[in-house]
Amino acid sequence: MSSPTETERCIESLIAVFQKYAGKDGNSVTLSKTEFLTFMNKELGAFTKNQKDPGVLDRMMKKLDLNSDGQLDFQEFLNLIGGLAVACHSSFLSAQKRF
Amino acid sequence: MSSPTETERCIESLIAVFQKYAGKDGNSVTLSKTEFLTFMNKELGAFTKNQKDPGVLDRMMKKLDLNSDGQLDFQEFLNLIGGLAVACHSSFLSAQKRF
Repeated sequence: MSSPTETERCIESLIAVFQKYAGKDGNSVTLSKTEFLTFMNKELGAFTKNQKDPGVLDRMMKKLDLNSDGQLDFQEFLNLIGGLAVACHSSFLSAQKRF
Repeated sequence: MSSPTETERCIESLIAVFQKYAGKDGNSVTLSKTEFLTFMNKELGAFTKNQKDPGVLDRMMKKLDLNSDGQLDFQEFLNLIGGLAVACHSSFLSAQKRF
């Protein structure tokens, strides 16, 4: 078997990261609010540390939890990753335009 | 600076992979049909090689191209990655249930 491509590695990583945090308590196929906060602080500390508003993570969880069951399933988790990637990509493009 | 977490690396990889393929011809902020096919064959060859129906990539492109401009922007590209990740995750969960 050939080694995985960057895209394949990335898909595997997203699944592994989700399962790591979703497995911490209760239902292991969803992220509870506590698991979501642990994930955000451990994996996206650079983002959470810059937030001065303590309510931002609460509001993110509410917005991501599309079916309002108090849990994030894998699709809802991917919407978070996608949203952050789009934000990074946009700021990268606008930085490029300055030069 | 501390080394990036797995999630941060993954977000960076998705942006880098998109830019690599989007930059091959014409508009470098979107994937043309040709760039999409190159991406699929190079990065997701394990998926494309197993497709016996030659029209599957055409139909995927049409389905992903939400605004029907013949190009995939970064958000549309992320929907592809998300769709594949959800499919992988689901097959992983159903494989687990068998044991």
